[in-house]
Amino acid sequence: MKFIVINGPNLNLLGSREPNIYGTTTLDGINDSVKEWAESNQIEIEFIQSNHEGVIVEAIQNAGRSADGIVINPAALTHYSVAVRDAISAITIPVVEVHLSNIHAREGFRAVSVTGHAAKGIVSGFGPSSYILGLEALKQIVEKQ
Amino acid sequence: MKFIVINGPNLNLLGSREPNIYGTTTLDGINDSVKEWAESNQIEIEFIQSNHEGVIVEAIQNAGRSADGIVINPAALTHYSVAVRDAISAITIPVVEVHLSNIHAREGFRAVSVTGHAAKGIVSGFGPSSYILGLEALKQIVEKQ
Amino acid sequence: MKFIVINGPNLNLLGSREPNIYGTTTLDGINDSVKEWAESNQIEIEFIQSNHEGVIVEAIQNAGRSADGIVINPAALTHYSVAVRDAISAITIPVVEVHLSNIHAREGFRAVSVTGHAAKGIVSGFGPSSYILGLEALKQIVEKQ
Amino acid sequence: MKFIVINGPNLNLLGSREPNIYGTTTLDGINDSVKEWAESNQIEIEFIQSNHEGVIVEAIQNAGRSADGIVINPAALTHYSVAVRDAISAITIPVVEVHLSNIHAREGFRAVSVTGHAAKGIVSGFGPSSYILGLEALKQIVEKQ
Amino acid sequence: MKFIVINGPNLNLLGSREPNIYGTTTLDGINDSVKEWAESNQIEIEFIQSNHEGVIVEAIQNAGRSADGIVINPAALTHYSVAVRDAISAITIPVVEVHLSNIHAREGFRAVSVTGHAAKGIVSGFGPSSYILGLEALKQIVEKQ
Amino acid sequence: MKFIVINGPNLNLLGSREPNIYGTTTLDGINDSVKEWAESNQIEIEFIQSNHEGVIVEAIQNAGRSADGIVINPAALTHYSVAVRDAISAITIPVVEVHLSNIHAREGFRAVSVTGHAAKGIVSGFGPSSYILGLEALKQIVEKQ
Amino acid sequence: MKFIVINGPNLNLLGSREPNIYGTTTLDGINDSVKEWAESNQIEIEFIQSNHEGVIVEAIQNAGRSADGIVINPAALTHYSVAVRDAISAITIPVVEVHLSNIHAREGFRAVSVTGHAAKGIVSGFGPSSYILGLEALKQIVEKQ
Amino acid sequence: MKFIVINGPNLNLLGSREPNIYGTTTLDGINDSVKEWAESNQIEIEFIQSNHEGVIVEAIQNAGRSADGIVINPAALTHYSVAVRDAISAITIPVVEVHLSNIHAREGFRAVSVTGHAAKGIVSGFGPSSYILGLEALKQIVEKQ
Amino acid sequence: MKFIVINGPNLNLLGSREPNIYGTTTLDGINDSVKEWAESNQIEIEFIQSNHEGVIVEAIQNAGRSADGIVINPAALTHYSVAVRDAISAITIPVVEVHLSNIHAREGFRAVSVTGHAAKGIVSGFGPSSYILGLEALKQIVEKQ
Amino acid sequence: MKFIVINGPNLNLLGSREPNIYGTTTLDGINDSVKEWAESNQIEIEFIQSNHEGVIVEAIQNAGRSADGIVINPAALTHYSVAVRDAISAITIPVVEVHLSNIHAREGFRAVSVTGHAAKGIVSGFGPSSYILGLEALKQIVEKQ
Amino acid sequence: MKFIVINGPNLNLLGSREPNIYGTTTLDGINDSVKEWAESNQIEIEFIQSNHEGVIVEAIQNAGRSADGIVINPAALTHYSVAVRDAISAITIPVVEVHLSNIHAREGFRAVSVTGHAAKGIVSGFGPSSYILGLEALKQIVEKQ
Amino acid sequence: MKFIVINGPNLNLLGSREPNIYGTTTLDGINDSVKEWAESNQIEIEFIQSNHEGVIVEAIQNAGRSADGIVINPAALTHYSVAVRDAISAITIPVVEVHLSNIHAREGFRAVSVTGHAAKGIVSGFGPSSYILGLEALKQIVEKQ
Repeated sequence: MKFIVINGPNLNLLGSREPNIYGTTTLDGINDSVKEWAESNQIEIEFIQSNHEGVIVEAIQNAGRSADGIVINPAALTHYSVAVRDAISAITIPVVEVHLSNIHAREGFRAVSVTGHAAKGIVSGFGPSSYILGLEALKQIVEKQ
Repeated sequence: MKFIVINGPNLNLLGSREPNIYGTTTLDGINDSVKEWAESNQIEIEFIQSNHEGVIVEAIQNAGRSADGIVINPAALTHYSVAVRDAISAITIPVVEVHLSNIHAREGFRAVSVTGHAAKGIVSGFGPSSYILGLEALKQIVEKQ
Repeated sequence: MKFIVINGPNLNLLGSREPNIYGTTTLDGINDSVKEWAESNQIEIEFIQSNHEGVIVEAIQNAGRSADGIVINPAALTHYSVAVRDAISAITIPVVEVHLSNIHAREGFRAVSVTGHAAKGIVSGFGPSSYILGLEALKQIVEKQ
Repeated sequence: MKFIVINGPNLNLLGSREPNIYGTTTLDGINDSVKEWAESNQIEIEFIQSNHEGVIVEAIQNAGRSADGIVINPAALTHYSVAVRDAISAITIPVVEVHLSNIHAREGFRAVSVTGHAAKGIVSGFGPSSYILGLEALKQIVEKQ
Repeated sequence: MKFIVINGPNLNLLGSREPNIYGTTTLDGINDSVKEWAESNQIEIEFIQSNHEGVIVEAIQNAGRSADGIVINPAALTHYSVAVRDAISAITIPVVEVHLSNIHAREGFRAVSVTGHAAKGIVSGFGPSSYILGLEALKQIVEKQ
Repeated sequence: MKFIVINGPNLNLLGSREPNIYGTTTLDGINDSVKEWAESNQIEIEFIQSNHEGVIVEAIQNAGRSADGIVINPAALTHYSVAVRDAISAITIPVVEVHLSNIHAREGFRAVSVTGHAAKGIVSGFGPSSYILGLEALKQIVEKQ
Repeated sequence: MKFIVINGPNLNLLGSREPNIYGTTTLDGINDSVKEWAESNQIEIEFIQSNHEGVIVEAIQNAGRSADGIVINPAALTHYSVAVRDAISAITIPVVEVHLSNIHAREGFRAVSVTGHAAKGIVSGFGPSSYILGLEALKQIVEKQ
Repeated sequence: MKFIVINGPNLNLLGSREPNIYGTTTLDGINDSVKEWAESNQIEIEFIQSNHEGVIVEAIQNAGRSADGIVINPAALTHYSVAVRDAISAITIPVVEVHLSNIHAREGFRAVSVTGHAAKGIVSGFGPSSYILGLEALKQIVEKQ
Repeated sequence: MKFIVINGPNLNLLGSREPNIYGTTTLDGINDSVKEWAESNQIEIEFIQSNHEGVIVEAIQNAGRSADGIVINPAALTHYSVAVRDAISAITIPVVEVHLSNIHAREGFRAVSVTGHAAKGIVSGFGPSSYILGLEALKQIVEKQ
Repeated sequence: MKFIVINGPNLNLLGSREPNIYGTTTLDGINDSVKEWAESNQIEIEFIQSNHEGVIVEAIQNAGRSADGIVINPAALTHYSVAVRDAISAITIPVVEVHLSNIHAREGFRAVSVTGHAAKGIVSGFGPSSYILGLEALKQIVEKQ
Repeated sequence: MKFIVINGPNLNLLGSREPNIYGTTTLDGINDSVKEWAESNQIEIEFIQSNHEGVIVEAIQNAGRSADGIVINPAALTHYSVAVRDAISAITIPVVEVHLSNIHAREGFRAVSVTGHAAKGIVSGFGPSSYILGLEALKQIVEKQ
Repeated sequence: MKFIVINGPNLNLLGSREPNIYGTTTLDGINDSVKEWAESNQIEIEFIQSNHEGVIVEAIQNAGRSADGIVINPAALTHYSVAVRDAISAITIPVVEVHLSNIHAREGFRAVSVTGHAAKGIVSGFGPSSYILGLEALKQIVEKQ
């Protein structure tokens, strides 16, 4: 089983980026936790982080051809990228959307998830744990197929 | 460690209620999974289901005095109950909101979570698994305190 | 054949409540007309009035298991109770929504029927006759099944 | 006693028009039921169907001078015709608005009844029975005057 | 000099139509005042009243070819008829819009004049005098050309 | 008979102010026409122009005690001054609102007349003639009282 | 003279509930102040607190039959409970709405008082003193009747 | 193969109507191009232009019984005529909507196509060529059936 | 202790201004009650009424330097004067906003208090008593400092 | 004559992407039809597909320097990319926007074309034929220049 | 060269007014910096501060006759004063709008600049430096004329 | 001291792009002025222009690590790029937003600055001078730190 973990714009700055909102764990730190989870679950993981909407769109498209599921944190793109939404709708493997912060507890525009409409489900607000929970959810969806 | 699992209006009908949206697992079925998870995690669980907003509000208040965390599926109340939101804000133990269906993929009014604004985080769209994921998230939050 | 007639908040005050809008007939008066209609149509009727959303939700749920149809005047709950709407959607017997006053001829917010979206149809504006017309409609729906 | 039954745009196509929404009964079929009801209630009926807003406006005006009540299904005009609304307000005989489908269970714009604001009441969602129920309601209003 | 006075839907009922809003003067009464004004100003007048949007549109088109100006009370059509607006924009003679009641002092939707956007100016709220004032305004515009 | 003609902010600049919208006639030019009209109608006129909302409010209040009617061009205040609206509502003599340009044919916010809700009627779009037409309208209202 | 003091959802938690917004006085503390005021004013007081909308509705209904006035803090229900609003409209004794915090200085949705539309007046923002001021207001209204 | 070309309000004025927006070609000019196209494609064409919504509705209904497809320019009706939309939905032959000007590049309200929702597709902005392109599109749709 | 009582536009007309809404007590009458209250509470009072936003702004500024608190009825300015709001925010003494009528029970735009956002609290709907209640509230706030 | 055909995000997945909406023809299939059309019209064609907004922007800029016209399907970018809109406005060669599906018959947000405001015209809803129709339209525009 | 620096309501309180937003520099402090800049640029400066909209309007009008440019901080008036906007539009010398705080980073209503629509440009968010930057901008505009 | 000047989509076309809005100066022309300013201020400057949101995001991120401040003209991205906004929020050096045209004087959607919320301040409407003014502002902010 192979999952792709996709991270959107500015998540490469985790740790130093608005730490009061996003915490002090770096993306490498999150990826280490993911790897650990993946090993104990015998799942292959590939990581992609990009600040480019187009790269994210293509990562989703490629995953649709080569992997069993996607965990994605579209970050800022969550709120306006119809292109990312359409990419998720265009593939047939399950996609789980995750967020570090609770998108319902911030500015009004962040409560709207344009991309989440196309995902299977959303995990939002648990910091780095959102990724592990999203992976657990994804694994169960794939196993049930 | 003790968690309260609170279910809102019409969730007692799970299994027969709009199964194309909510699936065929009954609330008892979900509770059995929760119990199993709780036992293997050595956490005490209490279940409350009510179709009454006031009972839900008081369950939250009581939990705030006697438990370490809450997993709540406010169901219909998610979208308008300021009373449930205020109850969550009024207590200091962590609250995780869960939903069986993906609230961002249904009617527009269901994408608005009035209650989620006050929760730590939200897990939405994974069917009965949303509860287990929510409990996992809750356990980690409590352990970190 | 058995129908449940459910009345929402403040309808117990009919007769004295804003008589210029709701008329001077009491709820007992309406119920007497309903009983008369029921007898001449050989239909069993059960009456429920409650000012509690939760009781209304459960009355709908119970009716779904024990009756052939529901006539409901959700009163104030019409305009915000997603819980009542979800209860109507959760059962499979037909539900007819009735209103004493014409909800399209009052304040703007009363023209929106949150619950009516889930009902078979709506009868609005004919005073106590709305109930009898709603029962007639319900009887025809049940007979056609 | 004389009632006018007025049908708006495209109702002449009933039976073949979007039968999943409007059913397979033709307008003639509905009119036959109406005639039957009228005979057993000794009420004179006149039928008018038009796809022209102006003809509908004038039918309402004429009815105001020559009949005791109107049952109208304004169809598409329900949602924007201030002219039909003003015609209903301009006469003093009672007007009952009917709809085959439940206008609260379709596209958002169909839940707004511009014309219903001026009617006595509305019957919506019972297929051809909406007409008979509307006539019953009208008869009771006229008898009470 | 020749002016056309065009009256929209339901204005043929003036005198009996909601007299608390529109007064007790009939359309014939208004037309008599207009004729008197026209004679003393040596202006030829033609009257058109129609409940049909299409007839109004064509009356405007015809006036554009045969008259020097139009005074129009679009009545209900004021608030939604893009067709009347486009007809006014399509001709080159001046058009003055008049209203018996003050459209800014009634329901919110009546304060919006879709047609007035294309007119030279608007006279609103002076009862039958609105027509005479509108004609005066029109005469001055035409004389200045 | 005595009328007060009140002009709001920036109307003292007429003639040089955005002449493509407001024309090249100065306020003195308009006042001269008004005086001429007043003399031939044997009506006393008083002119007030102010760029101060408070002065306009008090001019309306004073007129309510000393004059028979007001013609007011509130200019910019038309669109937000609840104080001017309340002043008009607070007095019992008739008030006619006039505008040089057609407020329905400009920016969206100019089509909303906050003050016009309280006036008897509105004359809009006829340049300096709007004042004379407004005075005519006012004279007729006062004569009818 | 007898007044009922009704408190809505979560007000039983006062003192510990978001003390930065609601202060540290408990509901018992407020009630003690009220009792003191009542004794010195020789007015009988009854206290009701409930987290159940239905109980609040019925408390208002009962008060309408047995008391001379109501001071109510509907708390969260202020912002959506048409049922509470309708209950207030359904009785004829005066009702004064009070709030601990200033509802105009918080989240946008809290500035809307659905229930306040039906009350005589509102006192908002003075902490526990809002109750005493509301009682003073109520007493004066009752004495003037 | 037989197509009906339907033109809505004010299109009979093409050539003289706001030529900066709609060009200088007359409707006869457009019809000549259409005839030429039809002959070279061996398709029978019928032309209907009307300023009456009802006539347009009936032309659509009739076409549904006697032709293979419709090209319609609903003109002003595009933006509010639910009746035309419902007529298009009520028939089963394909309908192509065309516009001379680009409806997305004008006033905001013209970007909303109420009727286009029911059409197969839309061609907008190419002047008279929009008709020929619409006919080409229609022909291909019919040929593929 | 010294308080300033500030009254906004048109409140100088109290007694004759729309008495069905604002009552028949004059501003002098209210001021007399205030003086009486002030004497029995040994508080110095200064009265300011102005129809000029700028005067009100400066009265607030001056009070901020010379008094212990303000009771203000901004009247019409309540609903749009950011300048008054900013003046209240700019000073550090407490400000209590009062209204004669219940702003939540009138036109929609009057339920929005732009100025109230910056005040400590609001008393609305009790006629002249609103001032005395506001003074009581203010006195308690000042005493607690 | 040289045209550039630009395709936006996810159109590289045509054929497998939501075939119920976008059909089963691949982008290569569409390009083959375009080539065929181009050869028979002796027009040089260049194809660009990108999932990157920036690449699309630059393709438009380059085309503005090297080609005679553009046919663009901005796909998801249609609904939010001001950058693509500005690029179209920044060049002087004609641009025709095309869509496979009818954007007026899907989710509300897809009916808004941010980019279409800057295009000459739009062809929407005809599947792969939209491209050929768009090219025909473009050719005529270029030939007329 | 002569510039007028105009300051709106409450800016006379700078230094003590909400220093966390507006800083601790007084208006005199800002004016000193402006004078220094003016001397080194050999530009005559006149300062006007007023809390009265009418005074601001007239200051703009006067400047239009006697100066070469205006730097204005309309403060609260920025967000609603159509009168100030119209005054800016009525004169022909350039006007630069400045703000101490960043209006895009505060409450939603402060991001809307009613007056800025009529200005040449806006400098916002740099504290007292906004004035010097605005003067620099103004000087360059005047020099280029 | 080192500043980065970042230019968003389509600004590489300056000079030929809609010159009536953006002027005839090229980006190279602007850069030359910037260089001149930088030299006389002894500040190192780096220029980045990109039509790719992702490149802009990364330029901001990099600047956050290597420079003392940013002047950015996000161009079209101003109005929707949450990614650019988040990048600005994620770094700690000051960012000044500049615009050639006055964003408050164009289409409504351009008055909303999504990115400006995160910037220190905004300079808008002064053509190429906006950059120099923005640099001046930036220099002062950096010097004050």
